[in-house]
Amino acid sequence: MSGFSDNIMRLSGRMLSQYPAQRDWDGKLTMAPHPGIIPTFSIEIMKWNGWGYSDSKFLYNKKGQAEFTGKRYRLSGMIIPGLREWMESTFSANLQHKTPAAPILNSSAVQPPTLNEAFLKELKSTGIPFSHDAEDRVFRSHGHCLHEIFALREGKIGRVPDLVVWPNCHNDVVKIVELACKHNVCLIPYGGGTSVSSALECPPEETRSIVSLDTSQMNRILWIDEKNLTAHVEAGIVGQDLERLLNESGYCTGHEPDSMEFSSLGGWVATRASGMKKNIYGNIEDLVVHIKMVTPRGVIEKSCQGPRMSTGPDVHHFIMGSEGTLGVVTEVTMKIRPMPEYQKYGSVVFPNFEMGVACLREVARQRCAPASIRLMDNEQFKFGHALKPQVSSIFTSFLDGLKKFYITKFKGFDPNRLCVATLLFEGDREKVLQHEKQVYDIAAKFGGLAAGEDNGQRGYMLTFVIAYLRDLGMDYYVIGESFETSMPWDRVLDICRNVKARIVRECKDKGVQFPPLSTCRAQHPAPPEGARPEREHVNGRSSIIFSTQRLLHNMFENLSVSCI
Amino acid sequence: MSGFSDNIMRLSGRMLSQYPAQRDWDGKLTMAPHPGIIPTFSIEIMKWNGWGYSDSKFLYNKKGQAEFTGKRYRLSGMIIPGLREWMESTFSANLQHKTPAAPILNSSAVQPPTLNEAFLKELKSTGIPFSHDAEDRVFRSHGHCLHEIFALREGKIGRVPDLVVWPNCHNDVVKIVELACKHNVCLIPYGGGTSVSSALECPPEETRSIVSLDTSQMNRILWIDEKNLTAHVEAGIVGQDLERLLNESGYCTGHEPDSMEFSSLGGWVATRASGMKKNIYGNIEDLVVHIKMVTPRGVIEKSCQGPRMSTGPDVHHFIMGSEGTLGVVTEVTMKIRPMPEYQKYGSVVFPNFEMGVACLREVARQRCAPASIRLMDNEQFKFGHALKPQVSSIFTSFLDGLKKFYITKFKGFDPNRLCVATLLFEGDREKVLQHEKQVYDIAAKFGGLAAGEDNGQRGYMLTFVIAYLRDLGMDYYVIGESFETSMPWDRVLDICRNVKARIVRECKDKGVQFPPLSTCRAQHPAPPEGARPEREHVNGRSSIIFSTQRLLHNMFENLSVSCI
Repeated sequence: MSGFSDNIMRLSGRMLSQYPAQRDWDGKLTMAPHPGIIPTFSIEIMKWNGWGYSDSKFLYNKKGQAEFTGKRYRLSGMIIPGLREWMESTFSANLQHKTPAAPILNSSAVQPPTLNEAFLKELKSTGIPFSHDAEDRVFRSHGHCLHEIFALREGKIGRVPDLVVWPNCHNDVVKIVELACKHNVCLIPYGGGTSVSSALECPPEETRSIVSLDTSQMNRILWIDEKNLTAHVEAGIVGQDLERLLNESGYCTGHEPDSMEFSSLGGWVATRASGMKKNIYGNIEDLVVHIKMVTPRGVIEKSCQGPRMSTGPDVHHFIMGSEGTLGVVTEVTMKIRPMPEYQKYGSVVFPNFEMGVACLREVARQRCAPASIRLMDNEQFKFGHALKPQVSSIFTSFLDGLKKFYITKFKGFDPNRLCVATLLFEGDREKVLQHEKQVYDIAAKFGGLAAGEDNGQRGYMLTFVIAYLRDLGMDYYVIGESFETSMPWDRVLDICRNVKARIVRECKDKGVQFPPLSTCRAQHPAPPEGARPEREHVNGRSSIIFSTQRLLHNMFENLSVSCI
Repeated sequence: MSGFSDNIMRLSGRMLSQYPAQRDWDGKLTMAPHPGIIPTFSIEIMKWNGWGYSDSKFLYNKKGQAEFTGKRYRLSGMIIPGLREWMESTFSANLQHKTPAAPILNSSAVQPPTLNEAFLKELKSTGIPFSHDAEDRVFRSHGHCLHEIFALREGKIGRVPDLVVWPNCHNDVVKIVELACKHNVCLIPYGGGTSVSSALECPPEETRSIVSLDTSQMNRILWIDEKNLTAHVEAGIVGQDLERLLNESGYCTGHEPDSMEFSSLGGWVATRASGMKKNIYGNIEDLVVHIKMVTPRGVIEKSCQGPRMSTGPDVHHFIMGSEGTLGVVTEVTMKIRPMPEYQKYGSVVFPNFEMGVACLREVARQRCAPASIRLMDNEQFKFGHALKPQVSSIFTSFLDGLKKFYITKFKGFDPNRLCVATLLFEGDREKVLQHEKQVYDIAAKFGGLAAGEDNGQRGYMLTFVIAYLRDLGMDYYVIGESFETSMPWDRVLDICRNVKARIVRECKDKGVQFPPLSTCRAQHPAPPEGARPEREHVNGRSSIIFSTQRLLHNMFENLSVSCI
C-alpha cells in the first residue's frame, strides 16, 4: 500500500476504535468508546427476538391506534391511523387475539456452552476479547429468516454458538482461524446478523465447540485513495457507518442494501449483496476492487489492486456468495465516488401492473434506468397507503397525492388495478432533469402519469421503518415471508401470476384459515450502459424488508422480480 | 429453451452448416459448404507460420516499396511509401539482410502422430470427423505468441497434437470428452488459434496421445430471443461471423476484440476477453448470460438463464480465464442489442502524453468514456504516420490532417512530444453529439485539440491490417512483443516510464545491437456508469495487435495500460 501513501487520508474512525478491550471481574467484556453505531454488545440496543433497535417498534396503544415508537426514524412517535383497519380487513386479524413474543431471554433455556478448553486457553493468551454469556451467544445464533425469528419469539432456543470472539483486526482473525484449525473448533463468521440464507444457524448435531467470530470491532476505514477513488476498509463496518464516514470526506460507495443500517461490508461480500441504487453504482461485485479473506489454508487475496485481470478464474467470484463457508473476509478495497451533486425522487401511476412492467422493459431497452425504480402492484400500493401517519408533510398519503391530480388526470384509473412506480434520480442537476424527462416520456407511452416527488420519496423513506412491521404482524397471528428472483423480461407477468396462484393453493392445501395476501414488486435491472447482466439480490437482507409488506394472516407472500 | 420458442428466430447459418461431414478415401476430411468465413481446413486460406489470410501480407515490391497484398482490406493493394524509411531509420533495418520464413511446411519435420488406437476406433464409430494430417496438426499446435511464430518461421516444429477432431455440436463434444477420459487421451480445445497465453502449446514431455478439439464446426446461432435481447450461440463461431449474422437481423453483441476476424466465442469466454468497445458493451463477463461447458466430470452450466444469482459463487467466473484447462465451452447465451443508430469517430492531439493521460483520467471521473478511446504516445503516433498509403481519402495521413490545422492551431506543439487520442462514439445521433462535445470540452482543458474524424477513423481501420506487420518485421531481423496491464490511475506514467527504461536495460544487458523502440498506449477504462471496475485484456489476442506496432530491431516493446 506504500504506493498510495502520498494520497491517503486517515479517518478518525480508526483512532477512536483502537482502545484495547477490557474484560471485567466476571469475564464479561467491556469495550472502550466505539465509533460505530452498533455497540460490541449489540443486544444493549437491539432486539434479541425481533428486528432492529429495541426502542423502535410498531404497537397498538391504549386507544387501539397503531404507532411507531422511539426517536430514530422520521416515522418515530407517529400515529398510523389506517394500519389497524388495513390489518383487520386484509387479514381478519383480531386485536383481542394477541400472540406476544417471550419478553426476555430465559437464559436457563440456553444449553451451557461446549467449551474447548485448549482453544480457550490459547485464545486467552492472545488477548482477543470473547464471551460465553448466554445473551451474546443467542444473539449470534440466527439471521432474520421468518422461521428463525418465529422460534425465538416462542422462546425456542436451539443449538447456539458456544463462544463469541471479537477480533480487532485482520491479524486477530488469522490467529483465531489458526487456533480453530489446531483445536478442531468450528467458526461461524458474524457481521450484521441480517442474513436470510440461514448461514448463521448452528447445525443441531454439531458436537464440536462452535465459535461465533463477530467482526463488529473491525470497522475502520484504513485509507481513502482520492486519486484512484478507492477506499480500503475493514470488513466489519456496518453500512450506515461506512457511508457516514465516507460522506464526512465527501465520498460514498453508493451501495445501499435495505439492510445497510445493520449489515456489514464483509456480509455484503459473503452474500453477494445488491443495493437499491445498483443501476448506477452496481452490485457488490462491481464495487469491490480487492478482497482479503482468511481461510483454514491461509490468507487468500489477489496479488495486486489492479482493477481487472484476465489471467485465470476470478477468485473474488469464489468468495462472493460463499456465505462464510470458505473463510472470513477481513478487509475490502471498494470503489468510491464523490457524493452525488443532486438527488430527485419521483413516482408514476400506471393503469395496471402489465403497463408498468412494459414501461420498465422499455426503460431498460433505452438504457436509461434511474438510480432506483420500483414498480409495486395494486396490493402493495394499497398497503403503502395504510402506512400513512397522522401528521406529516412528506408523509402525505399516496392517495392524497393522487387526489391533487385525480379530477384532472386520474379519472378512469381503477383504484383496484392501478399500480405505482417509485423513482430516484442521482447525478449532476442538469443530467438528472434530462434523465427525468426521458423516463417520464417513456412512462407516458404506457399510460403512466407522474404522481409527484413526495409519493416517491415516501416510498424510500419507509424502507428502513417498514422492516419493523413483521414483528407487529406476528403479535396477531400474522406471519409472512418473501422471496426475490431475476428472470427474462417476457416471464415477469407469468411468474407473478403463477407464484400468487401457487401460494393460494398451498395455503388451501395446508388448511390456512384465511386467504393469503400476495404482492409483487418489479425492480429495475439493467444499468444505464447495459453492459452488465441485470443483478437482483436473491438471498440477502434485501428480501427481508418485505417482511413488513408480508403482514398477513397466516400467510402473506411478497415476490420481487427483475430482469436481464 | 421451449420457453423461448414463441419469439425465436432461426438463422440460415444453422441450416447451411448442418450437412454431414464426409471423409474421402485417404481418410482426409471434406466438408460441405459452410457459412463461416474460415473453412474447416483453415490452412487452405490462412498462413501456417504467420498472421491471418495467406493472400494478405506486407512486402517490399521490386521497386523496394512497401505494399499490402490481397483484396480483403481497405489497405489491400496499396503502396505505403513511408514504411520503408521508417523501418530503416527506426531499426537500422537493412532490406538487403533478409531472414525469410520457411516457405512451406516440411511434413518430414513433423513427428508422426502418437495415436491411441482404442480411442481412434471408438471415435470412428461416432462418425465425428478427424484428421492426423501433418498440416492440420501443426496449424493447431500454437497460438500467436512471438516465440511460437518465430519457431515456425525457422521450421522448428516441436510437440504437436496427434489428432484433430471437428465436433459438430455439444453432444459430439460430450462423446469426445467421454472417450478421452476412458482412454486417457489429452484434449486441447482449439477455437480461433489466436491465443497469446501459450494455452495451445503441447507439453513436449507428454507421451499420451494429444487431441486438438477444433470447435470451428460448432458455429451456429441456435436462437435469437428478441424479447429479452439474448442470443444462444455455439462456441466455435468466430467473431466476424457472429457479428455478421446478428447484423443481418439488426442486432450486435458489441464485443469487438481486435482478433475478432479469427477468434471464437468460446475462446473469448475461456480467455476472459475484452473488446474495443467495452466502455459501452462491457467485457465478455458482462455479455455472457449462460455458459455450457463439457468437463471430464460432466456438463457444467447454471440451472437457469436468469441474469444474476446471488446464491453462492459464480461458476461463470471459474470458467472465464480457465484457458481450456477445465473443459470445453460448447454453447453460450449472449446479451445482444439493436445495432447502434449512429457512429462517429474522432481524434484529439495533446501537447504531450502526460496531458493526454490526465485528460483520460478526467473523462473517467466524469463517467463519459466513449465506446472507445485510445491514447498513443509520440512514438506510436509517428509509427501510425509511417503507415500512410499512397492514395486514399480516408487514409489521409495524420500529419496531413494536422497540417490543415497546424498554422492556426498546432503552433507550439512539439512534433517529438505531441500525442494523439483516437475516439469512437456510438448511440443515437443526438446523444452522440452531446457526448462528443462533452469529451472535447474536457480535452480542451488539458490542451487537447480536436484533430478530425479521419485521423480517428484511420486508427481503427488499421486495427486488423496492422496485425500483419510483425511478419514483415521478422523478414528483416526485427522482432517484437507486447504486453498489457491495468492499474490505478496514479501509476500510469510511472509504469510507462519504468517499463521503457527496463526494456532498454534488458536489451543492453543481452547485447542487442540497436536500441529498442518502445511505445505506450493507454486505453480508456471505466464504463460510463462506472459501476464495473475497469477491465483490460491481459492475455488475449488483443495484445497481439501490437505485434505490428512492435516492428523493431531485435527489440521493440509496446505497453498498453488502463485503469480503475
